[in-house]
Amino acid sequence: MRSDRLGETLLPKRLALPVFASDALSSVAYAPDEILLTLGLAGGALAMTRSWPVALAVVAVMVVVVASYRQNVHAYPSGGGDYEIASTNLGPKAGLTVASALLVDYVLTVAVSISSGVQNAAAAFSWLRGHEVLAAVALIAALTAMNLRGVRESGKAFAIPTYLFMFAVLAMALVGVVRRTAGTLPSAESASFTLAPEPGMEQLGTLAMAFLLLRAFSSGAAALTGVEAISNGVPAFRKPKSKNAASTLLLMGTVSVTMLLSMIALATWTGVQVADDPATQLLRDGVPVGDGYEQHTVMAQVATAVFDGFPAGVVIVSIVTGLILVLAANTAFNGFPVLGSILARDGFLPRQLHTRGDRLAFSNGIILLAGAAGLLVIIFDASVTRLIQLYIVGVFVSFTLSQIGMVRHWNRHLAVESDRSEQRSMKRRRAINAVGAAMSGTVLLVVVLTKFTHGAGFAMAAMAFLFLLMGSISRHYRHVSEELSVPEGDTKHQLLPSRVHAIVLVSKVHRPALRALAYASATRPSRLEAVTVDVDPEETRALQDEWDRRGIPVALKALDSPYREITRPVVDYVKSIRSGNPRDLVVVYIPQYVLGHWWEQALHNQSALRLRSRLLFTPGVMVSSVPWQLASSAGAEERMDGPVAGDVRRGGA
Amino acid sequence: MRSDRLGETLLPKRLALPVFASDALSSVAYAPDEILLTLGLAGGALAMTRSWPVALAVVAVMVVVVASYRQNVHAYPSGGGDYEIASTNLGPKAGLTVASALLVDYVLTVAVSISSGVQNAAAAFSWLRGHEVLAAVALIAALTAMNLRGVRESGKAFAIPTYLFMFAVLAMALVGVVRRTAGTLPSAESASFTLAPEPGMEQLGTLAMAFLLLRAFSSGAAALTGVEAISNGVPAFRKPKSKNAASTLLLMGTVSVTMLLSMIALATWTGVQVADDPATQLLRDGVPVGDGYEQHTVMAQVATAVFDGFPAGVVIVSIVTGLILVLAANTAFNGFPVLGSILARDGFLPRQLHTRGDRLAFSNGIILLAGAAGLLVIIFDASVTRLIQLYIVGVFVSFTLSQIGMVRHWNRHLAVESDRSEQRSMKRRRAINAVGAAMSGTVLLVVVLTKFTHGAGFAMAAMAFLFLLMGSISRHYRHVSEELSVPEGDTKHQLLPSRVHAIVLVSKVHRPALRALAYASATRPSRLEAVTVDVDPEETRALQDEWDRRGIPVALKALDSPYREITRPVVDYVKSIRSGNPRDLVVVYIPQYVLGHWWEQALHNQSALRLRSRLLFTPGVMVSSVPWQLASSAGAEERMDGPVAGDVRRGGA
Repeated sequence: MRSDRLGETLLPKRLALPVFASDALSSVAYAPDEILLTLGLAGGALAMTRSWPVALAVVAVMVVVVASYRQNVHAYPSGGGDYEIASTNLGPKAGLTVASALLVDYVLTVAVSISSGVQNAAAAFSWLRGHEVLAAVALIAALTAMNLRGVRESGKAFAIPTYLFMFAVLAMALVGVVRRTAGTLPSAESASFTLAPEPGMEQLGTLAMAFLLLRAFSSGAAALTGVEAISNGVPAFRKPKSKNAASTLLLMGTVSVTMLLSMIALATWTGVQVADDPATQLLRDGVPVGDGYEQHTVMAQVATAVFDGFPAGVVIVSIVTGLILVLAANTAFNGFPVLGSILARDGFLPRQLHTRGDRLAFSNGIILLAGAAGLLVIIFDASVTRLIQLYIVGVFVSFTLSQIGMVRHWNRHLAVESDRSEQRSMKRRRAINAVGAAMSGTVLLVVVLTKFTHGAGFAMAAMAFLFLLMGSISRHYRHVSEELSVPEGDTKHQLLPSRVHAIVLVSKVHRPALRALAYASATRPSRLEAVTVDVDPEETRALQDEWDRRGIPVALKALDSPYREITRPVVDYVKSIRSGNPRDLVVVYIPQYVLGHWWEQALHNQSALRLRSRLLFTPGVMVSSVPWQLASSAGAEERMDGPVAGDVRRGGA
Repeated sequence: MRSDRLGETLLPKRLALPVFASDALSSVAYAPDEILLTLGLAGGALAMTRSWPVALAVVAVMVVVVASYRQNVHAYPSGGGDYEIASTNLGPKAGLTVASALLVDYVLTVAVSISSGVQNAAAAFSWLRGHEVLAAVALIAALTAMNLRGVRESGKAFAIPTYLFMFAVLAMALVGVVRRTAGTLPSAESASFTLAPEPGMEQLGTLAMAFLLLRAFSSGAAALTGVEAISNGVPAFRKPKSKNAASTLLLMGTVSVTMLLSMIALATWTGVQVADDPATQLLRDGVPVGDGYEQHTVMAQVATAVFDGFPAGVVIVSIVTGLILVLAANTAFNGFPVLGSILARDGFLPRQLHTRGDRLAFSNGIILLAGAAGLLVIIFDASVTRLIQLYIVGVFVSFTLSQIGMVRHWNRHLAVESDRSEQRSMKRRRAINAVGAAMSGTVLLVVVLTKFTHGAGFAMAAMAFLFLLMGSISRHYRHVSEELSVPEGDTKHQLLPSRVHAIVLVSKVHRPALRALAYASATRPSRLEAVTVDVDPEETRALQDEWDRRGIPVALKALDSPYREITRPVVDYVKSIRSGNPRDLVVVYIPQYVLGHWWEQALHNQSALRLRSRLLFTPGVMVSSVPWQLASSAGAEERMDGPVAGDVRRGGA
């Protein structure tokens, strides 16, 4: 068995939490900021008074969503997640919509988490200021390289930072509460400023105020991103899988809510003021602070205040926050292969993504993901606030459709269920999902209305593009499948070729050529000949002389090559054989070097590859690769094994 | 015959001149500027008085170099150029040095020509100001795309701009002379300025003055870049090839010298002043002109003055200058495959570059060339002055080594020549090459001494890197060749496999699978079986049912796949067969789709490719690709033909 090769495949809850929850937990690093500064657009007073109601609204939605997803993981434990729920219950188009939304969401998870990580790090390492985009792109590149190589996701390296983060934030909350009670809680560094409203937002009518509150709420809803991750990873849990996944969800939800409320509380108590445009909005004694002021995140300011007199605390909080954000970004790299595999199974993505190939199978996807995230970081200047405008809409499309799907799921089951207590239980579950659907749908509407022009429209355009792309891939596969299908009773119509005409390509008398001749002879073809292309008359003459001298028993034919190319003379010769003998099968034996190092690929096999591609256009031709393992290739096969991104989340068989 | 496919392969002189001389002729767009502004570092007076001596020195070197190369093209008409001369006469290491220098030179030809083109265009289109780097990179990208697609180099599209350029510059010279004689030649726009020396260069001692003159001379020597191009392209000329090549060289040299001297004359007569740092060096009434001033090139300023009252003349000159610079850059894209082919023949570059493959063969090299040029443009801010510092050293390494090589060439021939008149002729030729070697060597020394810290050191480092890289490629090929060589008398030791065990990989019963079974049967193996991998139990069961239902006469075996992968189960199975029967040959038949569009590659064959690569590691295994031509592939084969970069310069057979 190969269980040893995948290591500890199934996760206990204590390791599953770091793997799946880092995305959701990390959002406490930016969600409070977004709430406060969106409210602060209308001035500091609003931010102070309304931050609690907005935060509580976000918490309420999170509670409902977590409760809903606990139903999901029991009903659909195969790891298909929202995509599968939507596909099964609402049809493939709905499923494809969810898939597009999730793919866009992965890209934004990377972009937002890395940007926020850099932002938090800049509080501790001020030399990062002004170079955030560069640092973010470098981090994305590093993560990409790591995931291309393949790093096992479940391990202490991942667990420890997550637990440290939770511990640090909760410790910070505790210390904050204690100091507040004792009356020794200092103010934040920005508490002494006045937060002026943006121009045009000084006097807001009721409608405008409501709109602003909704905007702040929808920004704060970024705290919910990542909740669905567990539903995609149920197979990775130890048995009982659904029960453990549901417990982990509950734990994650509880910790998330606690951290979010703690941060809002501490921010309020320490008087943190963050502004969308700090240079002009923050006034020190009535004068704008200008470009020289470095605005720190809420978490950094709260930490500085709470850990006043204990500077190591601030540094620790900054570091673990940065770490968990990097882990959250890494989430996307490992979640993508899982989703990609399921989409490939249904024909929406290239088929090779369905099976666990070697690590190269997903490398194109990983690079695309990283490239898109890097592009977003560059375009939006690594600004968390701007990127968040794109972030939330994908998540809530997914939430809404999956909850509606679950309601239909329960309806279907209720229709065939006769046992009363089961019925009651299903109705209860359906109610939870219905409330979840209603709330998610409302939030989705709010997000689209409040953020369409700010960036959500851009994200929706990307989703539409992916939807159409995957739809056309699916259509392509269906067309090809029809083209290739064999009508019933047609099996014997595949004419068996009468004779086999074997051609062995040689350029020199060396071991690979002799092996090719031996293999070709072993198949006992009707006709066997060796063929060389006369690129260099001297070399060809020398080859013919050596051929005769060694007494090789196969006839050697030299093809003219007036333009010093290899491909066309061989293709022409093969075609001439075929046109003379249309029912013959021509098998061309081409030596192929098996290489040890990647750079050797540029130096060998290239002409052979080109020739093979060209030959395959001709009907009735088959190309056989006769391998020659170069000495450098020893050990290369073992190197091809190893962890593959997404391994852990698929949970083995 | 395929002469029609390559079009008119051999060039008459009137078409050869544009193809080969655009690089050399185009340098008149920047060489005068470099002379003047380098002298201008010490003030305008020096630029005025010393520009003539410096230009005449450059012309003297050019005359000698052109005369030397006329010997080269007669003695080495195979198109190997400087590389071949150095290799043959001075040894492979010298040849490799020349090759490295030429490769660096190609990159810089692109960078300098494009940057100068943008600079010249900015005179006519002032909206380009501030966006030179972007425009340059965009131009490089466009040229790359064009050459990747393959554009025939000899054609009116190339000839007309070159002749227009020559005509325009010579017309400008003529008009200038006429107006000067009539006394109606206006001053240039910068004539009224005072050109102040750079700080620290106001009072130059004799040594420093001499050094500055040498710097100006070595910058002006950029006018010689491109002279060697014809020696690389002798095979492209019509017969008598060497004679025509020599005539074209003479013509090119004459036109070049005339244009250079005309430009210097006109610049002097119209009082053009160009500065290295115009914002601070140019004074209008004693006050620096500042950043607002847009400094135009010498050619633009001269054109504006000469064609005063005829504004279309200025626009025409700008346009044709831009065009010829683009053609000069295009030179590099077409010269590189020729050089690459020869280096590949000698084992210094990947072997596939030796033969005229389809256009893809050189695409990697073209992209590398363009990427390096683009990088240089970005790093050096598209500044012609700074890029020139790197440009000249490679050219003069090549000149010097090839001239020294020619001297040895004549020495060798003189040793075995008995005819007196031939001897006299050879001695004369040797003298020309010796003078050429001495002058080139001196210039090389001057260039290195004056520009090492300004950039030439960087270029030399790049040359050293290429030298080492190509050396290691050569060593690799030699090692592999030893590894693969067959000792004499060893031919019959290649054991013939006893039996052939054929395995056909199937996933569904469709046409490609049936064809693979048919082909495999045709080869009459000792044992034939069909194998499928059980990735999805339902699908596997359905396959087995259909297999039975259709009554396919080949046994179907399903391999377990606990981790939902394809590769490992197949490889393990093949290995188990081999270990049981070590003298058997296992042939694995894998269906391969032949595709029509490039994007289909992502959707098909990927798993098969991966499996094939893995299988080839196992000894005694051969992989046969059974093609299935998808309907979309019709016509794709014809699309693979077409012009290939460098076609024209190789001159056919």
